[in-house]
Amino acid sequence: MRVGIGLLGGGVVGGSLANQLLNDVEIIKAKAGIEVELVSVGVKDIDKDRVFPIEYATTDLESVVGDDRVDLVVELLGGIEPAHSLLLAALESGKPVVTANKELMARHGEELIALAADRGVSLLFEAAVGGAIPIIRPLSESLAGERIDRVMGIVNGTTNFILSSMEEEGREYADVLSEAQALGYAEADPTADVSGQDSAAKAALLAGLAFGAWVGIDQVYCEGIESLESVDIEMATDLGYSVKLLAIAESGPNGHVSRVHPCLLPFSHQLASVRGASNAIYVEGPNLGKLLFSGPGAGGQPTATAVLGDVITASREFLAKSQVTPRIRFSDASPGNFEDTMSRWYVRMEVVDRPGVLAAVAGAFGDADVSIKSVWQDGTGDSARLVVVTHSAPERSHREAVEEVGALESVIKVAATIRVLDEE
Amino acid sequence: MRVGIGLLGGGVVGGSLANQLLNDVEIIKAKAGIEVELVSVGVKDIDKDRVFPIEYATTDLESVVGDDRVDLVVELLGGIEPAHSLLLAALESGKPVVTANKELMARHGEELIALAADRGVSLLFEAAVGGAIPIIRPLSESLAGERIDRVMGIVNGTTNFILSSMEEEGREYADVLSEAQALGYAEADPTADVSGQDSAAKAALLAGLAFGAWVGIDQVYCEGIESLESVDIEMATDLGYSVKLLAIAESGPNGHVSRVHPCLLPFSHQLASVRGASNAIYVEGPNLGKLLFSGPGAGGQPTATAVLGDVITASREFLAKSQVTPRIRFSDASPGNFEDTMSRWYVRMEVVDRPGVLAAVAGAFGDADVSIKSVWQDGTGDSARLVVVTHSAPERSHREAVEEVGALESVIKVAATIRVLDEE
Repeated sequence: MRVGIGLLGGGVVGGSLANQLLNDVEIIKAKAGIEVELVSVGVKDIDKDRVFPIEYATTDLESVVGDDRVDLVVELLGGIEPAHSLLLAALESGKPVVTANKELMARHGEELIALAADRGVSLLFEAAVGGAIPIIRPLSESLAGERIDRVMGIVNGTTNFILSSMEEEGREYADVLSEAQALGYAEADPTADVSGQDSAAKAALLAGLAFGAWVGIDQVYCEGIESLESVDIEMATDLGYSVKLLAIAESGPNGHVSRVHPCLLPFSHQLASVRGASNAIYVEGPNLGKLLFSGPGAGGQPTATAVLGDVITASREFLAKSQVTPRIRFSDASPGNFEDTMSRWYVRMEVVDRPGVLAAVAGAFGDADVSIKSVWQDGTGDSARLVVVTHSAPERSHREAVEEVGALESVIKVAATIRVLDEE
Repeated sequence: MRVGIGLLGGGVVGGSLANQLLNDVEIIKAKAGIEVELVSVGVKDIDKDRVFPIEYATTDLESVVGDDRVDLVVELLGGIEPAHSLLLAALESGKPVVTANKELMARHGEELIALAADRGVSLLFEAAVGGAIPIIRPLSESLAGERIDRVMGIVNGTTNFILSSMEEEGREYADVLSEAQALGYAEADPTADVSGQDSAAKAALLAGLAFGAWVGIDQVYCEGIESLESVDIEMATDLGYSVKLLAIAESGPNGHVSRVHPCLLPFSHQLASVRGASNAIYVEGPNLGKLLFSGPGAGGQPTATAVLGDVITASREFLAKSQVTPRIRFSDASPGNFEDTMSRWYVRMEVVDRPGVLAAVAGAFGDADVSIKSVWQDGTGDSARLVVVTHSAPERSHREAVEEVGALESVIKVAATIRVLDEE
């Protein structure tokens, strides 16, 4: 019952997985009844220090996929190429694939899943979202019969670490980012994380599995955390909110809409208390109610554990010569329009410090059919700070309101707009 | 791709499932690619009002299992008989089985799983633990390669509702239980819940899957909530603790130990904030870190959703003629001794109100090698109340200490002993 594993990628996650495969052969055999054997590990740089025995390493990535002793290919390279070509080759030759590559799956998942189905082999990607947290499999299997209303969560540990530190220590974004980079919580090039693109790839995958309709990453509205200022985090704290970068996939009367953006969450919300690099994901449906999954969202060992679970399932299916993927079918469902999405907004403006400004601003919101729930005003010397929190209104009305407000003579600039989530 | 479903049980969960199967045929077909067809529902009482169309109901339970149109049997009767015989018959005849019956699985699961494996059919039981929360499948598949250290959680909604109400409203156990019965949160005969036996069955299943070693329900140490008094809940609140009924399965150096008992949890612990009838379960391992799963732990619709997920997976395996159960193999591993389990204890004593009592009590704890962390003493008129919280010590030492203390002339009685969990 031996299954030969070819690993692509020997970095943080790949190294952890290589060691788990080498050291935990006995427990895997005892609990899962499967004998896994690490055959080789494809790496880009053979001279780099590795946490696993170097004799497994090779820079010939194609040879890992083509090796006759390799029954199953695990891809942990990240990025689109060469991962995409290598996985196409693996699937073409009838080898099951396990990947943690959210970017690849969010861009080419539909093609890869169709190819796997055609060749009758498994394609699993639990570790692409939420690190060690089982979420892909629950959505694809346990909840496959449920008409899911919403999946919402914190799916990027780097940005959550930055936001938690900004909130707890009152520091500025750039300052915390540098520290996160020094500590290894953020990459040297943090763009994918802080721009929200990493979360958007995960939102696309979650939405596709939840709604049974493929969602491309380009259909996900995406706003990052780069422009958040500590003044807004402090103001949010004073108002009883934490600022979190949320991935939200919602099914509404006009179709499903997926989005990633910073959000003010009341302290009492379970997601507000998710600190540091943890991840947490809600799934809501009419029958199931509300489920919460939380745990370590990143890190070599936790992510490798999720990959290993997929390796075991794919191995079992390989040995049984059964192929039960795809778990979820994707039908054509036209997505809804993000502009129709209802939410409340927090809007901070820099205004001239004179009477009548509030009336003008309130008028502009009213013209766009957005009602104001509460207002705070502070003189800052030359100018004044005006903060408005609105009642729920469509995205398009909020944008219109902000444009009108920005054009007012008494408004120097609209300095920040952040959506507010007030439900529990 | 049609799969005929024979349902045993038309009560709260069975009725919800029957309706989901009848109403959600389209979404199941779209998302999972499977055509499910409800064939019949076996019920004990044909005259009872049902939430599903009565023409599906029959009292001939054997006929449901034997029906040629039934490809898959779902058992929601609860209890041992006739569920046990019916499922043996189903598996013998090569029909896959889905059940939510924790009692049956905890008592006869090993036999049923072996029979299913022998006949090459699926046997799934996600809904046996945690209602809608996916936990059986994550343990059996996603985490099958992990050397799990501990599974710990609140797995009984009735007792959690009672304990939450006692804490929030300062009421006595018997009073809250009557209310819970009137509201339908507790059964007319609440013994299985309040004695901890329901939680013990779930702990046995969780332990077996986590450790890959079958755990019989009789191997689970079990203490219920029947003897908890409001005075102890109040005292716990004053000390910064919530009282929760926990199911704990732990793997230690001397083997795995499973237990169910009330526990003092610090307010800051995530399980302390689980209110009402919700369930929440932690899974911990050396690689994965700590995962938390939470959601509705009972109720017809949530539980039916978990059953439906299993029905879809079992149907897919039936159609693919593949059988990939058992996910987890059970090896022989002798369990550890509960007497070795380390914990801290809260001990409330009724003592005579005179000097020297504390010295005598402290001496008795010391003789049993249990150190005292803190002490509270209150005169109550005739007698005094003495509360001791100990440092961590083995179960056997605590029992010895309590016995010695109880034998002291100055101690009227040991009125309460509750274990304390202080880690995060």
